[in-house]
Amino acid sequence: MGESMITGGAGAGVLLQLMRDGRPRTRAELTQLTGLARSTVGARVDLLLHKGLLAPAGEAVSTGGRPPATFAFNPSAGVVLAADIGATHATVAVTDLAAKVLAQREETMSITLGPRAVLDRMLQIGAELLAETGNSSVVGTGIGLPGPVEHSTGKPNNPPIMPGWDGYDVPGHVAAVLGGPVLVDNDVNLMALGEHAVVYPDVDHLLFVKIATGIGSGIITGGSLHRGAQGVAGDLGHVQAMGSPTAACRCGNVGCLEAVAAGPAIAAGVSAAGGSVAELINLVRAGDVEAANEVRAAGRRIGEVLAACVSLLNPSVVVLGGQLVIAAESLLAGVREVVYARSLPLATGSLQIVSARTGSQAGVLGAATMVLQHVLSPSEIDARLAV
Amino acid sequence: MGESMITGGAGAGVLLQLMRDGRPRTRAELTQLTGLARSTVGARVDLLLHKGLLAPAGEAVSTGGRPPATFAFNPSAGVVLAADIGATHATVAVTDLAAKVLAQREETMSITLGPRAVLDRMLQIGAELLAETGNSSVVGTGIGLPGPVEHSTGKPNNPPIMPGWDGYDVPGHVAAVLGGPVLVDNDVNLMALGEHAVVYPDVDHLLFVKIATGIGSGIITGGSLHRGAQGVAGDLGHVQAMGSPTAACRCGNVGCLEAVAAGPAIAAGVSAAGGSVAELINLVRAGDVEAANEVRAAGRRIGEVLAACVSLLNPSVVVLGGQLVIAAESLLAGVREVVYARSLPLATGSLQIVSARTGSQAGVLGAATMVLQHVLSPSEIDARLAV
Repeated sequence: MGESMITGGAGAGVLLQLMRDGRPRTRAELTQLTGLARSTVGARVDLLLHKGLLAPAGEAVSTGGRPPATFAFNPSAGVVLAADIGATHATVAVTDLAAKVLAQREETMSITLGPRAVLDRMLQIGAELLAETGNSSVVGTGIGLPGPVEHSTGKPNNPPIMPGWDGYDVPGHVAAVLGGPVLVDNDVNLMALGEHAVVYPDVDHLLFVKIATGIGSGIITGGSLHRGAQGVAGDLGHVQAMGSPTAACRCGNVGCLEAVAAGPAIAAGVSAAGGSVAELINLVRAGDVEAANEVRAAGRRIGEVLAACVSLLNPSVVVLGGQLVIAAESLLAGVREVVYARSLPLATGSLQIVSARTGSQAGVLGAATMVLQHVLSPSEIDARLAV
Repeated sequence: MGESMITGGAGAGVLLQLMRDGRPRTRAELTQLTGLARSTVGARVDLLLHKGLLAPAGEAVSTGGRPPATFAFNPSAGVVLAADIGATHATVAVTDLAAKVLAQREETMSITLGPRAVLDRMLQIGAELLAETGNSSVVGTGIGLPGPVEHSTGKPNNPPIMPGWDGYDVPGHVAAVLGGPVLVDNDVNLMALGEHAVVYPDVDHLLFVKIATGIGSGIITGGSLHRGAQGVAGDLGHVQAMGSPTAACRCGNVGCLEAVAAGPAIAAGVSAAGGSVAELINLVRAGDVEAANEVRAAGRRIGEVLAACVSLLNPSVVVLGGQLVIAAESLLAGVREVVYARSLPLATGSLQIVSARTGSQAGVLGAATMVLQHVLSPSEIDARLAV
């Protein structure tokens, strides 16, 4: 319970929160919606206009006399720098305050270069994108990384495929150049957040599953990201697959879902793919039957684990994302087949299992959403405006 | 966002929320803690004193001049009727407004008698317990049922072992006698809520697993109960057990965890138990080696599924409850063995796996907690006091 709730709030933050839906409103409408005094609404609207967070939006229809002025949220009042840094590539974007992408670049980049090189390159791309958009008023930076992150400090926490990153002060490095706030999270969590914010804003319970070189998930419960006690919730890649498989996993255990159903495992089972995930995806796209069969079999194995997740969480939407899903309808079919067969009817009666609609933008959209949820929250706005 | 948050609240509810920790405070302390105006605090304290929700608690140490009066939350201002109705027994209790049990009775009762007979018997026991405690000011009733419940309406939703209960208006039946509010939930959800409120109030992420005739779980995320989209989250009994077992389950599927690791399945594997769970528990208590081995093996099977749950949710505490856990240390040992072996080190580094401390009272404590969270919430208090 924030201080502003107890004291009733200065009002500007609550008022801006209402306006983020983009609808123009009059002072009278805002007075009615917030329950704040008319004089308070007037003063807060003036302040938000002065700060550029609201902008005049023309006149309302008159009910007699002079027509009242309307105001709307101004998403151009600042920009967010958003980065989705994967194992072998990075996507960097600049968005407005409504998380709309204004400029974006994707390039090959290995996470193994270490934090300084990777973050400096990200900052360089960011500077170029900011110059392109002509808006350098950065309100915050959001970064997704391909490993566990302690969200409260923004530091990677024993990430398995990120040599040199463990405990590195990512926010400190970036804030030294761009200022704060700098928020960091696991890339799959941000994909969940992005897909949820853009495609399913009204869904309370959603599970986003990424299937690529590894397998991971991001969980939305009660409309918010569920990070868990150590921030590692959603790690499905090392759950034991059904049927007691004996394949060795890079984590040191045997029979992990990732070791039998992620991209490399599928590619290894398709002779023509020669162990390459890119080649596997080409084969699937070209209609190769062996490749399609192997992908569907992997979908069933993933489905067996997701059936347990559906029984546990009872989500209304399961979204599959990642490079394999984008390429392979067979994967989705295999997952659906098993989840609908293995979960209780009550939990699957109105369950949707679908592929991601935000595609490769999910991560940067989530990074921007994370920053905006923070900097535009009522308590942050009140604190910034010091009212 | 409640209306009271936007308008700043009338204050009485927020003030009472603070006082629920039981500590006596002066008007000056409350003014400082809430940020409310001194005159508002004075008026709200007077109102809560008048309603009996606060009571005088002596004088504070003077800092010169007349020592100021202190006030404390008065848990005797009303009572809650709480019932935990299982498949074959019911526990009914009357608690005070701090969820302390004042009177309790447990008796054999079959859920198959149907809603009218079961609820009427519950109301009769309740009336006797209320007479015992001499406090008939019931602020609300909480009921746990052994099946899926649509929490918003309090109606059972296709419960498999509760003939006649599907869609029955449980709140309506009870409110006709006792008045409202009447809140209903699944019994395992309430056990999770009770254990969390009493033993782990500061833990954000907890998984409560009940192992008895069936297997189910209740999930606390971010300090609150996670019910899921249809209110059936936590249903672990029908998740597929590892190793592709072929045992038929009462749900119509094969290889469900419940069919291989719940009480009846274990009892069926111990010749001396003759298929009886009660006899199985006696054998375990008497140190029978075959029984202990079978129970431990069941613990491992449950552990295999819980390892996946731990990877997915990343809780800091897993609590095992239900009659089998109370009787069998071997079960806990089997679960621990597999969860620590199969989950990622980051997720288990500070994970506790323990047996329930609230024992057979978990359900009624959870039912009372559910009611108190509702009736003593700031918005409900403000609405009731109509300030």
